[in-house]
Amino acid sequence: MLHVSTKFDRPDPALIKELGQYSSATIHEAQGRLGALDSAIKPVDHTMSLCGPAFTVVCAPRDNIMLQVAISYAQPSDVIVVSGGAYTEAGSFGDVLANACVSRQLGGLITDTGVRDTAELRELGFPVFSLSVSIKGTVKETIGPLCEPILIGGELVRPGDVMRADADGVVVVRREDVASAIHKSRERIAAEDGYIAEYRAGKTPIEVSKLGPVLEAKGLVVD
Amino acid sequence: MLHVSTKFDRPDPALIKELGQYSSATIHEAQGRLGALDSAIKPVDHTMSLCGPAFTVVCAPRDNIMLQVAISYAQPSDVIVVSGGAYTEAGSFGDVLANACVSRQLGGLITDTGVRDTAELRELGFPVFSLSVSIKGTVKETIGPLCEPILIGGELVRPGDVMRADADGVVVVRREDVASAIHKSRERIAAEDGYIAEYRAGKTPIEVSKLGPVLEAKGLVVD
Amino acid sequence: MLHVSTKFDRPDPALIKELGQYSSATIHEAQGRLGALDSAIKPVDHTMSLCGPAFTVVCAPRDNIMLQVAISYAQPSDVIVVSGGAYTEAGSFGDVLANACVSRQLGGLITDTGVRDTAELRELGFPVFSLSVSIKGTVKETIGPLCEPILIGGELVRPGDVMRADADGVVVVRREDVASAIHKSRERIAAEDGYIAEYRAGKTPIEVSKLGPVLEAKGLVVD
Amino acid sequence: MLHVSTKFDRPDPALIKELGQYSSATIHEAQGRLGALDSAIKPVDHTMSLCGPAFTVVCAPRDNIMLQVAISYAQPSDVIVVSGGAYTEAGSFGDVLANACVSRQLGGLITDTGVRDTAELRELGFPVFSLSVSIKGTVKETIGPLCEPILIGGELVRPGDVMRADADGVVVVRREDVASAIHKSRERIAAEDGYIAEYRAGKTPIEVSKLGPVLEAKGLVVD
Amino acid sequence: MLHVSTKFDRPDPALIKELGQYSSATIHEAQGRLGALDSAIKPVDHTMSLCGPAFTVVCAPRDNIMLQVAISYAQPSDVIVVSGGAYTEAGSFGDVLANACVSRQLGGLITDTGVRDTAELRELGFPVFSLSVSIKGTVKETIGPLCEPILIGGELVRPGDVMRADADGVVVVRREDVASAIHKSRERIAAEDGYIAEYRAGKTPIEVSKLGPVLEAKGLVVD
Amino acid sequence: MLHVSTKFDRPDPALIKELGQYSSATIHEAQGRLGALDSAIKPVDHTMSLCGPAFTVVCAPRDNIMLQVAISYAQPSDVIVVSGGAYTEAGSFGDVLANACVSRQLGGLITDTGVRDTAELRELGFPVFSLSVSIKGTVKETIGPLCEPILIGGELVRPGDVMRADADGVVVVRREDVASAIHKSRERIAAEDGYIAEYRAGKTPIEVSKLGPVLEAKGLVVD
Repeated sequence: MLHVSTKFDRPDPALIKELGQYSSATIHEAQGRLGALDSAIKPVDHTMSLCGPAFTVVCAPRDNIMLQVAISYAQPSDVIVVSGGAYTEAGSFGDVLANACVSRQLGGLITDTGVRDTAELRELGFPVFSLSVSIKGTVKETIGPLCEPILIGGELVRPGDVMRADADGVVVVRREDVASAIHKSRERIAAEDGYIAEYRAGKTPIEVSKLGPVLEAKGLVVD
Repeated sequence: MLHVSTKFDRPDPALIKELGQYSSATIHEAQGRLGALDSAIKPVDHTMSLCGPAFTVVCAPRDNIMLQVAISYAQPSDVIVVSGGAYTEAGSFGDVLANACVSRQLGGLITDTGVRDTAELRELGFPVFSLSVSIKGTVKETIGPLCEPILIGGELVRPGDVMRADADGVVVVRREDVASAIHKSRERIAAEDGYIAEYRAGKTPIEVSKLGPVLEAKGLVVD
Repeated sequence: MLHVSTKFDRPDPALIKELGQYSSATIHEAQGRLGALDSAIKPVDHTMSLCGPAFTVVCAPRDNIMLQVAISYAQPSDVIVVSGGAYTEAGSFGDVLANACVSRQLGGLITDTGVRDTAELRELGFPVFSLSVSIKGTVKETIGPLCEPILIGGELVRPGDVMRADADGVVVVRREDVASAIHKSRERIAAEDGYIAEYRAGKTPIEVSKLGPVLEAKGLVVD
Repeated sequence: MLHVSTKFDRPDPALIKELGQYSSATIHEAQGRLGALDSAIKPVDHTMSLCGPAFTVVCAPRDNIMLQVAISYAQPSDVIVVSGGAYTEAGSFGDVLANACVSRQLGGLITDTGVRDTAELRELGFPVFSLSVSIKGTVKETIGPLCEPILIGGELVRPGDVMRADADGVVVVRREDVASAIHKSRERIAAEDGYIAEYRAGKTPIEVSKLGPVLEAKGLVVD
Repeated sequence: MLHVSTKFDRPDPALIKELGQYSSATIHEAQGRLGALDSAIKPVDHTMSLCGPAFTVVCAPRDNIMLQVAISYAQPSDVIVVSGGAYTEAGSFGDVLANACVSRQLGGLITDTGVRDTAELRELGFPVFSLSVSIKGTVKETIGPLCEPILIGGELVRPGDVMRADADGVVVVRREDVASAIHKSRERIAAEDGYIAEYRAGKTPIEVSKLGPVLEAKGLVVD
Repeated sequence: MLHVSTKFDRPDPALIKELGQYSSATIHEAQGRLGALDSAIKPVDHTMSLCGPAFTVVCAPRDNIMLQVAISYAQPSDVIVVSGGAYTEAGSFGDVLANACVSRQLGGLITDTGVRDTAELRELGFPVFSLSVSIKGTVKETIGPLCEPILIGGELVRPGDVMRADADGVVVVRREDVASAIHKSRERIAAEDGYIAEYRAGKTPIEVSKLGPVLEAKGLVVD
């Protein structure tokens, strides 16, 4: 018997919404270059993005029964995060389940396996990030952990951690660090806006990043 | 000497047209999860799709002389299917040969090597599915089998088998199984439309897929 | 101490402009099938293209201090070419530095590592070709060679060699071979236009490529 | 807080010992071609083999704190099975922990990350199967599931399932199927011994596998 | 119906024996750097080597019925060469069939799929070169071409071409080029023996390869 | 013209000898988990090891003219370190050049391309670490940097940095950090010997690594 609990704490929705104003790259930098999933996990379309609390699930490779359970128990705005064995040759999610997700107002899906029916996913506008697109079907045989810490894309994701994903990739923010990530992202954006203004005014990276003394200390001499 | 015959039976064009109304993923499922080529073989553009009988050819890696022979002998609506050694670093097909294919009213091209001139392929609207996009040219040196069973993307494809490809990938349907694949695809779509209606009405996957007793039998207890 | 010189000869800008009228695939063929970088180096968006002299730089993996130096010293129209260790899991270039490049009127960037902020790169229209898209940040620690011959995508690129890149990939033209590459590309395009005209008139590849005697000599008999 | 239980049922040691008389390939075949881990998980040395109940653990990538916990709680003869994110560039186990395992009479270790100190592992004769050999160290930061079902090498492994590994690879046998796997392996070996005897007596595979009628039915004619 | 012929010409056994005195690397160089299969095809043990005429067969992925046919029809000293779709996750050959090969005095086996029972293959001393070692079994379902030109490891191999394989890899020699390959290999070895003698006498590569004027012409100045 | 200098400082040979008493993994840990090359760069045989100052060279892919220059100018005990474009399908070093290296008493060779004649390399006992074994030959055409900082295996290596390589992999130690790396390695080995003694006395990793309070602080509760 496998006893699982789908009860876990989610961060304040207002904070999650605010976090979603920053890009995955900005948040990754802001929280000290942590939390980036492998770059091989990509959006189905580069216009897709999402930000929401992780509802984690482990699927046996080529098996999506637990994904169906996850969609059944997830709350509105939750992002289903699937650890499925980093397997490219299976499409464990398609237009039928996407309709379930849309009806249930879920926030999106991130998986380290494949998905299919990408034309319909584009039409539905449901944000999906996956390792591959594959037409190969899955079975519904094997039960496994739900709402436990999982591995995906080289990171550990816990239920309630916040997933932010866009054209550039996916980052996870620990549920206890959301406010801090927002604060540091805001600072970072302000700094970057300043750098961009300086660049538009004609300065060089050496000037803007104040690299002159650094390079001198490291012994670089440029003619 | 290598003696090849380009004579083989093709399924009824009306059946092929009907099969083309179903997606590659649907057909793959409908025929018992068989026939999917590796997910690494992708359309040049996600709007491309094709459905037609396979005209098979084996090209030596980095050599496209047999591809030129194939295009010369293929019939209108045929899909050229190239086994070229699963080699990414060669573009064995481009805009010049694509013009030949369009003039000859071929149905498309699927290859386990690379192609090039993708901007022109997009403009021409000729559907091409390949392992890669590569600018590297090929030679015209080595003769090889034509209209024989070939290996591509982890599947055996025989002349006259029907290839169906779209944004999600490529599936092969045995030439003797086309009518059956249509029948089962039609059933599957009807079932899926029913599931989608249930999802839009607010049901969960556990309800729609009737997973309750299954999960209980497997010993899953969810809080 | 590392003493580097950023002085090198660039080909005549008029020649570079003329070369840019030909595609990467055409130029690769025209110069004898040389100079193609690995197909894994791709444009951020398939509408991007560039043609300009290479300003070469070696970056330590996950480190972009030398890239900042390179942008600071490159001349208008130069293409920054980064050898960074063929490392997918780092985004060493994004919107901030892209603004610097645009302000400095650089011609584009080609790297064997990752980039990020791709939505902004698309908006800016600054052409970027990379091995990956990754949100992972880089440090600014390690100095290295600038304006030396570098390895990227399986080719040696020297400062002042001309980079031509488009939807199909990237080719390098030796700085002393630009005029010759233009000449041969022009001839090739003329020949290809002729082939296309023949194809549109209904000829087969065997006819257009005059393969009949060749195939006979090789012993191919087709029924 | 993460509450984990290390209590689970293990199959009868006598049965495990008997299962260990059969090779991983034989068992895989015997149980219906199920349970094989990806072929990329290899022994450190081709003379290594193991057979024992799985003590499962999830390690965050580049982090081995939970591996240390696992070794602390595992029972003699247990095989530590680590799901660590299919990450090659980390060596999460070496000679120091191998000495701990030997002292604690553990049965071996299987991981989808890297290991190091392979010379010492060979000397100790402790059987280790891994995705890679890497000298890169790991941290001790992140807690995660212990003695839960885990994903490794494209298979789900539950605590108490039996792992059998040798020069050819790794297979998992469900804890409730051990007796059946032994029985079928014994039958298979008997059959194979018969085939080998027939081959040594000079018969062909077509004769031994009785393929004649099968091939005829499939339409193969051989000259 | 698929009609195949197993009749083809083999080079003179005395020539094949003589060719076998040279290494795969030497022959590859001697015949103008042609014929090398991809380096991913490796011996099961680095002490294995073979030299014999190719008996070619196409196996559908995860299917070895045609391999059984091939072994049944191959002649003593033939090397079975399998094109099986470059598929790592299947072991289509093991100890049972290896006993058949030994009884039938075959020369070895080269495959672009996996093999298993490697401990027994080592004991039998039957030389096997494969893409992988995998315990996963195969079916016996799909007929395909026999004794046709096939693709393997990025090369086209025709029946009767000679395969030479050793610790370094695999090379194919066209059946009509065997005498020439021997002649040029002999010359190459003589030249290399001369170079080695010069190196042992203390000369540098620049002296032995007479690179001085070459480097000067290319503009290299060394301090 | 390309002007290169082969003059650079090497650490004290006595220090290099002392460093060589520690394994690559120990040194990597000791110097703060820095300097490990990618795990894909492996010894030709697991008994090979080396420790010596880097003599760096950039070779164009499939071209070994600069490697010949490097061997000609390297000093006894130097380790030739080749940045060749991370290219598996070329064997740029074999038995002839290995004889040159042995005569010149070089310390070994590390390359991110392939090598060949591995049987002879084993016999000679010359330590070689490479990305692959490939029989494909190289040309002698393209000059490039010598004794400059280079990229290999995801690390920047400067001339005179010390390379330590063994069965587990390769680590680079900055030339100015050799004494410190020795000191810290010695401390680390002493500590590890202590841990091993504790393990042999029957302690668990939780006891030896004093993980109890750490795990409690992180909220892990184990039954």
